[in-house]
Parts: sequence; C-alpha cells; structure tokens
Amino acid sequence: MRAPKFADIEQAHERIRSSVHRTPVLSSSTLNRILNCELHFKCENLQKVGAFKFRGACNAVLLLTDEEAARGVCTHSSGNHAAALALAAAMRGIPAYIVMPRTAPEIKKQAVAGYGGQITFCEPTLEARENTLAKIAAETGATEIHPYHNFDVICGQGTAAKELIEDAGPFDVILCPVGGGGLLSGTAIATRAMNPSALVVAAEPAGADDACRSFHQKKLIPSVNPKTIADGLLTSVGELNFRIIQRTTDEIVTVSERGIVRAMRLIWERMKIIVEPSSAVPLAAILENKLDVRGKKVGIILSGGNVDLEKLPFHEFV
Amino acid sequence: MRAPKFADIEQAHERIRSSVHRTPVLSSSTLNRILNCELHFKCENLQKVGAFKFRGACNAVLLLTDEEAARGVCTHSSGNHAAALALAAAMRGIPAYIVMPRTAPEIKKQAVAGYGGQITFCEPTLEARENTLAKIAAETGATEIHPYHNFDVICGQGTAAKELIEDAGPFDVILCPVGGGGLLSGTAIATRAMNPSALVVAAEPAGADDACRSFHQKKLIPSVNPKTIADGLLTSVGELNFRIIQRTTDEIVTVSERGIVRAMRLIWERMKIIVEPSSAVPLAAILENKLDVRGKKVGIILSGGNVDLEKLPFHEFV
Repeated sequence: MRAPKFADIEQAHERIRSSVHRTPVLSSSTLNRILNCELHFKCENLQKVGAFKFRGACNAVLLLTDEEAARGVCTHSSGNHAAALALAAAMRGIPAYIVMPRTAPEIKKQAVAGYGGQITFCEPTLEARENTLAKIAAETGATEIHPYHNFDVICGQGTAAKELIEDAGPFDVILCPVGGGGLLSGTAIATRAMNPSALVVAAEPAGADDACRSFHQKKLIPSVNPKTIADGLLTSVGELNFRIIQRTTDEIVTVSERGIVRAMRLIWERMKIIVEPSSAVPLAAILENKLDVRGKKVGIILSGGNVDLEKLPFHEFV
Repeated sequence: MRAPKFADIEQAHERIRSSVHRTPVLSSSTLNRILNCELHFKCENLQKVGAFKFRGACNAVLLLTDEEAARGVCTHSSGNHAAALALAAAMRGIPAYIVMPRTAPEIKKQAVAGYGGQITFCEPTLEARENTLAKIAAETGATEIHPYHNFDVICGQGTAAKELIEDAGPFDVILCPVGGGGLLSGTAIATRAMNPSALVVAAEPAGADDACRSFHQKKLIPSVNPKTIADGLLTSVGELNFRIIQRTTDEIVTVSERGIVRAMRLIWERMKIIVEPSSAVPLAAILENKLDVRGKKVGIILSGGNVDLEKLPFHEFV
C-alpha cells in the first residue's frame, strides 16, 4: 500500500469539508502560564461522534464507487472508529456492519446503534473478531474500512492537523497521541508539508508503548498485553502507519497513567471541555517533562471526548 | 441609573474585544434530532475565567479613569463575578479587593486568589458582606463593581449575544438563564436591535424563581430562601436589570432541578463540553416543554463552566 502525500490530504479535505465540523482551536492563558509555553488545542473531541476518527471514516466512505457503496462498509472495532464509520455510512445512506466484542462497554454499543450501525457481537478475541468480520464481508460484499492501516483513513485524519496549522500555525512543535498510528501518520504528513520546521512528536502511554519501542528499535514490535486507561491507544501500530511514522516523526515519548489522569483533569478544569484519557496523553508528556517546550508554540491534537460519566478516573491517582 | 442602548453594547464590544475570547458557537446534530429544532450554543463556559462574567467585569474595569483605576476595584461575591473582576483588574495591573463569605467553596477561593484577587473573608450574611465591602471601599477608595446592577457590566454581558447573532444568527428564539439579570438584560438589548423578530426568553430554576414572578406580576419581588443546584442563579434580579427586562423580554419560564441535571448531562455527553448547572437551565426549559421550539432556530447562551469535579450531580436525580 503506498503512503499518502500531502496532496492526498488536501483532496481528502475538499471531499469531507462539508461533512465534518471545522473544530475550534482553543487555548488557555492559565495553562500557558503554568506550563511556560503557548499551547493551541485542536478540539477533535468536538468533532462529530466525539472523535477525529470521523474524518478518516468519512473520507473512506465518500471514496467508494456507487456500486461498492450499495453493498455497505464493515469493520471490527469497540471504539470511536465503529461509531465514526456507522455515522459516515448513515450520511451516505448505506449500511455499516460493525463487529463488536460482546464485552464492549454498553455506552459504546449504544453509540454505534444510535448512529444506525448494524452490530454483530462476537467473542472478545482478535481471532473471533477477524473471523466474524470476514464472514460478514463475504456474505454482504461490504468493503472493510480498517481503522488506521488504510490510505484513505490516514488522509482523512491528516485534515485535523491541516486545519490546526491553517487556523493557528505555524508551530514549533506539533503533538498528538499514537495508538494505531492513523492520526500520527496523517498529522506528520500534513505538518512536514505545511510547517516543515515544526517537530512532530507523538505521546503514548507507557503501558501500551509499542509505537515508542518500534520507533526507537526501527522495527515493528506489536503490543503484548497493553494496559492503560487511554483505551483509544491500546491497539498496535499498523504497518503502513509505521512506515510513514519512521520517516516523518521526530520523537515518540511515553507517559505514566498518573500523568494521563492529571492532564485530563487539567484540561477539564481549565479548558472546560470533556476529553477522553487518550486525548490527555500529549499534555501528560509536557507535564512529565518528556519534552522541552519552554517558550515554544505548540499545537496539540485532542483526539476525542467519549468517556463514561459514570466512571470518571479522577480518584484513581489521588 | 439609565439603561444601556445597543450603541453602548457596540462600544463595549470594541473596548473589550482584544481582552476576551470570541467564544465558539457550537451545535450538535444529535441534539437537534432529539429535540426537533436547530440549536446553536454560545460557549461562554469557554470564556476567560470560565464564564460570561468576564465580559462585564472587563468592560467596567477598562472604563475606569487612570486615577480611579489606581485605587482598584472591589466587590462582594462568592461566584464567577469575583474571579472575573480579579482577572480583569490583574490585566489592567490594578488591585481587586474581593469580599467572600468564609463558607465559600475552597475551589472558588482558590480561583479568585489564583487570579490575584485580594480576598477578605466575612460571615456568610448579606449584611456582613455589605458592611465589609463598605469598609474596604472607604479604606482603599476602590470602585465597587456590582455583578449585575451596573450599566457597564450589562453592556459587557450583552456582547455575548451580539457575537452569537453575528456568527450564527438570525434566530427565531434567543434563550439565556436569569439570576441577577445582567446577562438577560444585555442579551435582550442586543437581540432587540440586531434580530428584532426573535423571541427573547429567559429560563430560571423553579427554586429561585424571583425573576419569573417579578416579570409576571410586573413588580420586583426579591427571592426568599432560594434553593437550586444552579448556584449562579441564586441572586435576586437587580433593579436596573428588571426595568430593562420588563420592556425587552418576551417570556420567563421555570424549570425543575431534575430538568437542570438532565440538561447538564446531555450537554456534557453530546457536546463534550463542561457546563455548570446554571448553563443548563435554558436547555432544561426545552426538555421540559416550557416553550415550543419545534422546527425553530434557537440561540442559547451557555453561561459558564465552573463546577467542582469532586461533586458532580449526575447521581442526584437518577
């Protein structure tokens, strides 16, 4: 699979522009004072379905031919990509078949169903998920849209950084979280083209640090038993994503669980917006001095805002 | 005290424009689908100090002569106005003397102190607050800035509706909460001038319904023992504010505590932003069918986002 160029991200942006929110870029003078730098937050938590994932899903769905579209799309996911694909499909009026583990949180099942996704439950193993998905794809002829190892998805995710740089750039540093690497690879391609002097840095939970280890050892090392509160970042980096990251990303740093919760709380309290733990990982890297941003202008992509209000983590690390 | 005209709000806007955030206007297609109308939320929870109050405080502080400014400003408040005045004063480099009841929540004391306010604590009675304030004003020569019964404050608060209508108007209905009436009176003056066909409707907690009763009985009736989770709306309507409201507002409706919490939760979950209970009062009016907005385009001012994350109310009305 070839890697996208910036021109592909520009085309994706034209394609999805009228379907996605141009999310605001917010800043907090208090946070800037505390952290001694100038932070600009791209609020993809305010994107449709509450996550940047809608950009990539939307781009992939809009690129289907009418014939392909008529057969629908499918994926296996228990997270934001499932909801994003369901909504993108609903907006084109086509079916979305979503394979979810039986054990997925009720709130995620409701979200996918609420956007009109047709859910098939399976056992909570990767094998069961892949087998169930293969069966559905064979039966329906639906096109599988992978959450990150997908050219069109990467192009869609890259539009968040493009908007961030257009609206508040240029920056000294661009920071985003890394899980499967869809957001990071798109972000890095856009930044290299639009703001070449900026450092592209990704942050990852120490408990799910496959991207960091892969990056530094220069070979793809999948996660084994990842564990982190940042549930959007449990997946291992995709092959295409890793190839892009290797040649476009300057650094990947890791953060503690305590740092993630502290950063999440700081964003809730100071910026008055709801972010999920995954979104707080880049700010945690600054809080934990994993990179030096003193006096620098930093763009941070807040990836999503889907949390269960019944299970807030603020007491876990007091 | 004369009532402001729209030209006064326009001048206030020019004056404070570079000091305040032009907060985003957000919408949610899911909320629109659920409620069968088109809602546009002016996010003053994302304003500096997390509340629209910063607009009025800023306008009042900027209007002081250099001589007045040198002696500082003062007020008694345990809420957002205290923090707003402290920050507005700090930005002009002048002292802010804030009288707070000893019993004010720790989080509010920290906020005021964090913005550089000089706090004097007093007993938690209106008499003690007023006496303490009078003493400080006499000692320091500081100018008292009342939180709502103040011409310049009303002009500042009116700039939120002005921006809302500029950015997303015109509307069929403009909705805001009412406590002391600073926001409502400014909002109504701006709306009457810019969007004269819009209905101006205010929403108030049934447990602190002095504005609603005063409005319908056409005379000022102060609150007696108001009680509501919407702590920003406990104050009674000011005299100047009531005079303006009487001739500019179309309706005032009341909502239940349960409705406030439901609306607050809906905003948190669907819009991914943090609002305090007072902010949720207008949406509660729609949820409880206190006004008919079916098929209509509605602008709602979200007044603030200062909540104690340790004490969230979502379990109180399950």
